[in-house]
Amino acid sequence: MIKARIVVTLKNGVLDPQGKAIEGALGSLGFAGVGSVRQGKVFDVEVDAADPASAEAQLKDMCAKLLANTVIENYTVEIA
Amino acid sequence: MIKARIVVTLKNGVLDPQGKAIEGALGSLGFAGVGSVRQGKVFDVEVDAADPASAEAQLKDMCAKLLANTVIENYTVEIA
Repeated sequence: MIKARIVVTLKNGVLDPQGKAIEGALGSLGFAGVGSVRQGKVFDVEVDAADPASAEAQLKDMCAKLLANTVIENYTVEIA
Repeated sequence: MIKARIVVTLKNGVLDPQGKAIEGALGSLGFAGVGSVRQGKVFDVEVDAADPASAEAQLKDMCAKLLANTVIENYTVEIA
């Protein structure tokens, strides 16, 4: 089993209301000097693959087909 | 402005129905050999701090107070 971490983040320029709400909440909690906050998703996946390269190819395929909306999101795959 | 990435993941042993649903969906899409999938959250935060150490302290405080539920979640802070 090869372990990997996939991080999906919103592309630059895409509005992130959840991040904005967190910014506001941090301000209300007394954290001064908080700049932008952007929220994304992380997936820790275990795949059964012969080698890291084929695992990475499979994981990128998963991102394109299910895990990320490539119109508005970027993704990165890191093999652990 | 210091940029940081906060990753919040469920602790081991905490049930992750969202991850289980993704596992099932990947199987239905024809991805064989997918082991466990666990979903977490990622926050890209910019903070105004004098040095990386004070930024990290402030970010950990944010995690404890707002971004993570420390009963069921772990968090890591990486300064970029």
